[in-house]
Amino acid sequence: MTMKLYGLAMSTCTSNVIGCLHEHGAEFELVPVNLQNGEHKQPAFLAKNPFGQIPALDDGDLTLFGSSCDLLRSQNPKEAALVKTWMEVESQQFRPAISPIFYQSIIVPIMYGGSPNQTIIDETSAKLGKVLDVYEKRLSSNKYLAGDFYSLADLHHLSYIYYLMKTPYGKLINERPRVRAWWEDISSRPAFKKVAADLTLGDKN
Amino acid sequence: MTMKLYGLAMSTCTSNVIGCLHEHGAEFELVPVNLQNGEHKQPAFLAKNPFGQIPALDDGDLTLFGSSCDLLRSQNPKEAALVKTWMEVESQQFRPAISPIFYQSIIVPIMYGGSPNQTIIDETSAKLGKVLDVYEKRLSSNKYLAGDFYSLADLHHLSYIYYLMKTPYGKLINERPRVRAWWEDISSRPAFKKVAADLTLGDKN
Ligand SMILES: N[C@@H](CCC(=O)N[C@@H](CS)C(=O)NCC(=O)O)C(=O)O
Ligand SMILES: N[C@@H](CCC(=O)N[C@@H](CS)C(=O)NCC(=O)O)C(=O)O
Repeated sequence: MTMKLYGLAMSTCTSNVIGCLHEHGAEFELVPVNLQNGEHKQPAFLAKNPFGQIPALDDGDLTLFGSSCDLLRSQNPKEAALVKTWMEVESQQFRPAISPIFYQSIIVPIMYGGSPNQTIIDETSAKLGKVLDVYEKRLSSNKYLAGDFYSLADLHHLSYIYYLMKTPYGKLINERPRVRAWWEDISSRPAFKKVAADLTLGDKN
Repeated sequence: MTMKLYGLAMSTCTSNVIGCLHEHGAEFELVPVNLQNGEHKQPAFLAKNPFGQIPALDDGDLTLFGSSCDLLRSQNPKEAALVKTWMEVESQQFRPAISPIFYQSIIVPIMYGGSPNQTIIDETSAKLGKVLDVYEKRLSSNKYLAGDFYSLADLHHLSYIYYLMKTPYGKLINERPRVRAWWEDISSRPAFKKVAADLTLGDKN
């Protein structure tokens, strides 16, 4: 059976998993979930992810959810511990600082036709700037976040930064030379280019 | 060199790592960090964790931070993916729902001499109840969260639930028979009993 990934290619959460699957040339079928209709809160989807959120991955005898594409995991235990440390930084420091900017500047206008809350954007941009200052320093002694090797810790940043670069707040990346070089490097990987083609939220058309 | 763990034995974040180290009989020295004096925001500590938070682990040639005791990691890739899925549930669903209850009912009164904000407690208790409903169901078909084996996914719940049981909101655990049995099982492990002896926040003395 081909692995099935339930989610939406344009969503940040799903695209992390798609990027990871592409890195490994894994075959999978993307099954769209209609969030507008609340399909993710119906029993059929809740059986895949009891928390009612995309993505969920079904490979026949195993159902996983969350960002559970673990294929890049390094086998060397020291490297694995560093990858885990920096994945936790992504989820506990970076994501809480970048996701409100994404939500206010992209989701609010297109999904709700509203205007972004500038106070929230300003507060979280300051927070994000501080996180990126730590990255700038880290990337002066390591080519990638976990060390001198590309890992899931880097990959998990891609979709949010990609969307950030469509907004004026992309300057937070561009102002920091090492963060900018890291972003240019990781976003030019072929696996991510396939992902980026679908990250169309906020595009004028 | 003996591994050094910088942190506080009574804090939930540090105790997760201590529990994991005890599970493996690892030798380590706990080096207390004076949060009251802001020692965690000074250069010496920032060199260990640039985000200025406990815990940090230093084993001589490697400095890790966050909940980076990965020793229980299962080597079987399917099991590892399930452990990762349920660790993400802990960090994204369980912790945001339980930590405000802990903060309001234990930290606010003892650290600030204030009274708990009951509205916050009520809102997050409802959220926590929903998360525990998912656990109740999960534990009807699996002995532990990730499957029929004890893992980091279970261990990461211990300190918060231990503190919850000191409050009236322990009923959220006790009302759910499978969650309660799971809690009794995992909290009676010898490694956790050593940890629990130091989880003294909120104790009258
Ligand atoms: N911890 C999950 C979070 C997943 C998540 O937040 N999914 C969002 C879409 S990006 C969702 O399904 N939202 C609908 C909802 O929560 O009701 C992950 O990182 O994969
Ligand atoms: N993501 C970290 C969070 C660590 C954390 O929140 N540590 C708290 C103590 S429990 C801390 O150092 N607080 C001081 C601060 O943030 O300034 C982990 O899970 O280990």
